[in-house]
Amino acid sequence: MKVFKLGYLGPPGTFSEEAALLYQRFHRQSYKLLEQPTVTQVMEKVASGSLDQGIVPLENSLEGSVNATLDQLVCLEEINIYRELVCPIRQCLLAAPGTALEQITRVYSHPHALGQCRRYLEAVLGHVSCFPVESTAAAAAMVAANPGSAAIAPRRAAALFGLMILAEGIQDYDDNVTRFVVVSREEHPPTGCDKTSLVLALSDGPGSLYHVLGFFAARKINLTRIESKPARRSLGDWLFFIDCEGHKDDPQLASLWDELRRNVPFFKLLGSYPKGRTCLTADKQTG
Amino acid sequence: MKVFKLGYLGPPGTFSEEAALLYQRFHRQSYKLLEQPTVTQVMEKVASGSLDQGIVPLENSLEGSVNATLDQLVCLEEINIYRELVCPIRQCLLAAPGTALEQITRVYSHPHALGQCRRYLEAVLGHVSCFPVESTAAAAAMVAANPGSAAIAPRRAAALFGLMILAEGIQDYDDNVTRFVVVSREEHPPTGCDKTSLVLALSDGPGSLYHVLGFFAARKINLTRIESKPARRSLGDWLFFIDCEGHKDDPQLASLWDELRRNVPFFKLLGSYPKGRTCLTADKQTG
Repeated sequence: MKVFKLGYLGPPGTFSEEAALLYQRFHRQSYKLLEQPTVTQVMEKVASGSLDQGIVPLENSLEGSVNATLDQLVCLEEINIYRELVCPIRQCLLAAPGTALEQITRVYSHPHALGQCRRYLEAVLGHVSCFPVESTAAAAAMVAANPGSAAIAPRRAAALFGLMILAEGIQDYDDNVTRFVVVSREEHPPTGCDKTSLVLALSDGPGSLYHVLGFFAARKINLTRIESKPARRSLGDWLFFIDCEGHKDDPQLASLWDELRRNVPFFKLLGSYPKGRTCLTADKQTG
Repeated sequence: MKVFKLGYLGPPGTFSEEAALLYQRFHRQSYKLLEQPTVTQVMEKVASGSLDQGIVPLENSLEGSVNATLDQLVCLEEINIYRELVCPIRQCLLAAPGTALEQITRVYSHPHALGQCRRYLEAVLGHVSCFPVESTAAAAAMVAANPGSAAIAPRRAAALFGLMILAEGIQDYDDNVTRFVVVSREEHPPTGCDKTSLVLALSDGPGSLYHVLGFFAARKINLTRIESKPARRSLGDWLFFIDCEGHKDDPQLASLWDELRRNVPFFKLLGSYPKGRTCLTADKQTG
């Protein structure tokens, strides 16, 4: 059985690793997880063939630079989106075994994670000082060696660094999710319940967006996401990242691509893949 | 002369502080800069009146959680966007005075900053190891005490930590910008060259977006940004953050707000403010 090399943004003990583990379990394939230092390196190694697939954050991640993911999807011709995973961000309070909540005087985490749990920290640990560090995994590693301290990190980090879970789901909002995508050189075949991601440029700004969206509306194609970004100058003034329902090879979509190519200065299909549902975290999966 | 209290996301030596200094200089007003630990705290303190204004990242920031900014703009009734600043991200390589490029064996920075300068690091400093830390300011502080190391940080951090600038503008792409907004309880009066930011919810997903954009198109109102986000459940399924040209009190826009209110389940004006141009960095401003 072939072992697939799956790259992810390290270090282990972050939400990116949690998503990679979830993907590995869900697909029951022989995936070997390979930690990479940056999102760009994950994607370039998939493009060059030294990784089979890579998992990278696309929206609202604590750790990854989502802009790097979008940049590379636009630039790299060889790769496309193969799957998506929507993972809830469930923050845990972790400490060395035997630590009581009352003993904690210092809390470490990624600055965004500290921000996400602010109400919990104020209500339950009002007396503690917070220290930002570069990742949730780094926070967990520090806490393992420091009695009296706690880390905010994913559940996974507890197992990895021998920590105890003092509290789980301590983020201020329950509906905070990160959307990850799996990138591959291979295309995913149609499944009957797919989404397609694409990017296009408009030279005269979002004023002409209404016109372009009319091409989708005329075919009753539902959009599921839209985001404008100022473009690298060579591509036009504005880039629009659009997700719509359907597979790029579906008959009603095929004619859309031709129409877009004729009407915009830049257009690229980023991939068609099965619609992802919100996932349980890796440790809650059965099997 | 009244001293205005301007909150920003600390620590000093980050791009957020650079933007706050730029704003302070540009307006030649008596602003006192007050460092805050999170974006949420900047905005809540403006809402409660303990700060006069706050400057927070809205798009593509290295440091701030942009989602926190959007969340608070939706939730806090008391505040609105008062100004915008578009600041290019210019990364510098900083080291202790007297350090030569050849002596550097370690480079510290925020993980996203290391990612933004990867090509430079590979080409010029191929032999060094990179260490992610929680902010560009933290990197600069570490380097001051560690000969043989360098930090990737904004120019401002050199002055703050007594470092030398070995190289400037080392980011892989030149057109990387962060958009900051100034939030205030006060509204900005019309200037004749304004933008308005708004958020609205659509219950049946981006499929109905085309219909809503028609209200703008019918009035020939140009959009300058659009972004969809999954909404907190209480507000509907999808939130759309939209910027358009014009001031909310302009006659042709006033009727748009009524039409939107009648047609969508949630709608909020986030503020009208003068159109921002791309700014020079604080240290390059004259006067």
